[in-house]
Amino acid sequence: MLIRIGYDIGFDIPSPVTMVGMLHVHPSRNTDLRGPDEVIAEPQVNITSYLDGFGNRCSRFLAPQGNLALHNLTLIEDSGEPDASAPEAEEHPVDQLPNETLPYLLNSRYCEVDQLSNVAVELFGAIAPGWGRVRAICDWIHAKVTFGYHFARPTKTALDVFTERVGVCRDFQHLAVTFCRALNIPARYATGYLGDIRVSLPPSPMDFSAWFEVYLSNRWWTFDARHNYPRVGRVLMAVGRDASDVAITTSFGLANLTHFSVISDEVTG
Amino acid sequence: MLIRIGYDIGFDIPSPVTMVGMLHVHPSRNTDLRGPDEVIAEPQVNITSYLDGFGNRCSRFLAPQGNLALHNLTLIEDSGEPDASAPEAEEHPVDQLPNETLPYLLNSRYCEVDQLSNVAVELFGAIAPGWGRVRAICDWIHAKVTFGYHFARPTKTALDVFTERVGVCRDFQHLAVTFCRALNIPARYATGYLGDIRVSLPPSPMDFSAWFEVYLSNRWWTFDARHNYPRVGRVLMAVGRDASDVAITTSFGLANLTHFSVISDEVTG
Amino acid sequence: MLIRIGYDIGFDIPSPVTMVGMLHVHPSRNTDLRGPDEVIAEPQVNITSYLDGFGNRCSRFLAPQGNLALHNLTLIEDSGEPDASAPEAEEHPVDQLPNETLPYLLNSRYCEVDQLSNVAVELFGAIAPGWGRVRAICDWIHAKVTFGYHFARPTKTALDVFTERVGVCRDFQHLAVTFCRALNIPARYATGYLGDIRVSLPPSPMDFSAWFEVYLSNRWWTFDARHNYPRVGRVLMAVGRDASDVAITTSFGLANLTHFSVISDEVTG
Amino acid sequence: MLIRIGYDIGFDIPSPVTMVGMLHVHPSRNTDLRGPDEVIAEPQVNITSYLDGFGNRCSRFLAPQGNLALHNLTLIEDSGEPDASAPEAEEHPVDQLPNETLPYLLNSRYCEVDQLSNVAVELFGAIAPGWGRVRAICDWIHAKVTFGYHFARPTKTALDVFTERVGVCRDFQHLAVTFCRALNIPARYATGYLGDIRVSLPPSPMDFSAWFEVYLSNRWWTFDARHNYPRVGRVLMAVGRDASDVAITTSFGLANLTHFSVISDEVTG
Repeated sequence: MLIRIGYDIGFDIPSPVTMVGMLHVHPSRNTDLRGPDEVIAEPQVNITSYLDGFGNRCSRFLAPQGNLALHNLTLIEDSGEPDASAPEAEEHPVDQLPNETLPYLLNSRYCEVDQLSNVAVELFGAIAPGWGRVRAICDWIHAKVTFGYHFARPTKTALDVFTERVGVCRDFQHLAVTFCRALNIPARYATGYLGDIRVSLPPSPMDFSAWFEVYLSNRWWTFDARHNYPRVGRVLMAVGRDASDVAITTSFGLANLTHFSVISDEVTG
Repeated sequence: MLIRIGYDIGFDIPSPVTMVGMLHVHPSRNTDLRGPDEVIAEPQVNITSYLDGFGNRCSRFLAPQGNLALHNLTLIEDSGEPDASAPEAEEHPVDQLPNETLPYLLNSRYCEVDQLSNVAVELFGAIAPGWGRVRAICDWIHAKVTFGYHFARPTKTALDVFTERVGVCRDFQHLAVTFCRALNIPARYATGYLGDIRVSLPPSPMDFSAWFEVYLSNRWWTFDARHNYPRVGRVLMAVGRDASDVAITTSFGLANLTHFSVISDEVTG
Repeated sequence: MLIRIGYDIGFDIPSPVTMVGMLHVHPSRNTDLRGPDEVIAEPQVNITSYLDGFGNRCSRFLAPQGNLALHNLTLIEDSGEPDASAPEAEEHPVDQLPNETLPYLLNSRYCEVDQLSNVAVELFGAIAPGWGRVRAICDWIHAKVTFGYHFARPTKTALDVFTERVGVCRDFQHLAVTFCRALNIPARYATGYLGDIRVSLPPSPMDFSAWFEVYLSNRWWTFDARHNYPRVGRVLMAVGRDASDVAITTSFGLANLTHFSVISDEVTG
Repeated sequence: MLIRIGYDIGFDIPSPVTMVGMLHVHPSRNTDLRGPDEVIAEPQVNITSYLDGFGNRCSRFLAPQGNLALHNLTLIEDSGEPDASAPEAEEHPVDQLPNETLPYLLNSRYCEVDQLSNVAVELFGAIAPGWGRVRAICDWIHAKVTFGYHFARPTKTALDVFTERVGVCRDFQHLAVTFCRALNIPARYATGYLGDIRVSLPPSPMDFSAWFEVYLSNRWWTFDARHNYPRVGRVLMAVGRDASDVAITTSFGLANLTHFSVISDEVTG
């Protein structure tokens, strides 16, 4: 399956400001690209690229005063398979986890493992470890939390989601990530493209999507407490401890968003 | 100056538990060591060592059930100079900061930059950028926050410190780190040995200490909003985004602390 | 001036539920009424009325399953004068405050006086006590907090408003109330009708409005940190410690709001 | 049974400050008094007394600069019976609750009913209404929360107790009160004397104690999530929505506590 992916993001910049973006597909998907994955800025700016500590490809530039548009449009090959399901996948005892997974057991800005640790054990501690337990976490969150775009707020944490029971996709994943970590299952936040491919869904404003990954049986697996069923066509852009690490754009000063569109659809015919 | 550093930490472990420790001096101080920097565990456990994403040397082991003691005693050469002072050191515009300093501008578990950003600008935005502004931050915190061991709690964040105005050394640094980041000054949390060397202080229970580092004029500098004057004899063990990243020991399950002592004194005579 | 006031509120009630409403004008305005101030419920329900501990007239009823509409339409005489201004009004030393004003110095659900006490003193402690200080509080909040209906959330507290700097009218007043109390100025939350009378404002969805009252020079005075200028035509319905005490309707179980309109306009011609 | 009750509280007052105290037994116990219930202040101050909106007897005075001692010592007759137990006591449907109990269903400063409502229903919603459900709430809290004087902090709320699982007696009751209210059971916070009468307990620093009351079968009943068994010799001083309403002393300015002792023991022989 070939997927067309891209975005068109506009800012009004009151005075020059440094921006960092996670505007590329994740390096793990580079070999699937069937076109250039380039950020086009208008006006042209000098974009430098680097890998951050999580392995994401970051773009960095000084945005000049005035209007700035960032766009990108490319093609990527995809298996067309829904998210892998592996009911036999097992949790590792912590002492057998790879070193590099350990940071994904800790607290982070939007995932207060310390504050939700008892709750996680009470709700899910008695469930058999492994794939089924992560599924139970997703099922619980999917059933208990109501989705709504107007419930978004930038400072909302996993604890807020647990008490308020409303949120957007990032909120669902933050709570799931927190519960997993509290049970010693490495969990990380993921962001990327997720179009309404091979599903019939009510049309929704297209945005980047959030999901999460857990480490079971020696690899990372995709879970999504918001949609809570295997989806086709996820294209990973960045992973991190939570949304704070993988903002699509971070501006170190004022940058007013003026438009925003994301494309992610199957190339057919 | 030669400093004797070490610790003796005891745990009662109800059932086998994986622990990760930051129990060594920071690799940047390795060449100053004048003895082995080894973690001795009783009973003996198999300790593996690795560098985390922040460059800290971590120790990892499976603690068996029962009593566990971790100790270490070594010598390190120190300049004997107080923390460097550089009133001319300058803030970098964000676009000139090295890539690797950028994560130290972001939110982290105990440093809610998003929630304290306006406060930081209101309090310190009008102060001339650079060394003096970081000093102003430290002075404000030192004057406004009251120190007390009984004010410690594991979940306390920078915002809590700002509203409650009481805390232990880690709390002072979390608030300072948050204010710096809000002003686009990279700031990271540091932990290590800090004995009462060449100062006359009322005797206090010796513990590891926390301070913080900011990036000005192309390097990291030590600041300490708790003590707020140049100290002699800091021995860095670990740096990170906040206390969550650099806990002396993190246990992934129950481990009850039974004793705790830290040594850090000048070798004289 | 004669003002037409009223509302039409609809609920879908999944199963019988007790509701308490503050659906009348405040007893202090009874003599101004020029028509009956009656809650009409469809279907008819048995409404009982009582005064709560704050002196508000409360309506209480068991809402049956199905659709419920509450409406009211009446006339009230108003001075037509804008909110009183009294630059000479003075704060009372606490020992000279009437007993009944003292609860309005304390913490309440959405007004964390304990957490914002230091901030209040730092921002407004040096300003001369009295009317001007309350004005300074309103000016600060009006300048620093951005209004937007989409910033509303039911659990938002004064501390949230202080850190997020966005909100709806109730949020502006909660922060103002909290700052006043922290300075030992009795302050209470008020709700009622406030039409766009004798002002030219962009048309806005008509809702009940929130403002607050402070006790200076032996009486309560109206302030409004949201609009921040004297308005004509406020009709008080209820006062309390914060929004928790004076919700227009509180349902002790599910009641889904289906429509909501408020009328408050000058009768002319 | 005759109980000797009293206190001796000392303050260092840096400058004159108004204080309000709840320093008497609750009016409901007046007929049990066997001695004068008078607050003796040294130096003498002019104390005025009034009933607050909750029916508590409050003392109010302007404390002069310097040392201030407040003491009281009296006798009260007590049934000697442990707290009443009434397993048949029933919850009232909200529409049958007396008006004056309704405020005890709402949010208050330390009892965030809005934030813990879902949790309460998930934990206790399936338990049969009535006495047994309140007991289940107490049992849960007693089992899950660890008592410790060093866990006290003035700003700790029910949600904090739920996440941190540590606290002092007021914290236990705040969480219980919040869970009850979320289930539409009126619950109020109570404070008073509770000596170690006819129990064998390890000696503890004597302090005022907190418990709570719920409204079942037409009356208020005493519960205590901290001790969680019927105690002998409670002497009620004040009730309110939470600790914010019934502080033993509230000072509207600085007043440094210098000593504090409470007596509550059976008069024997």
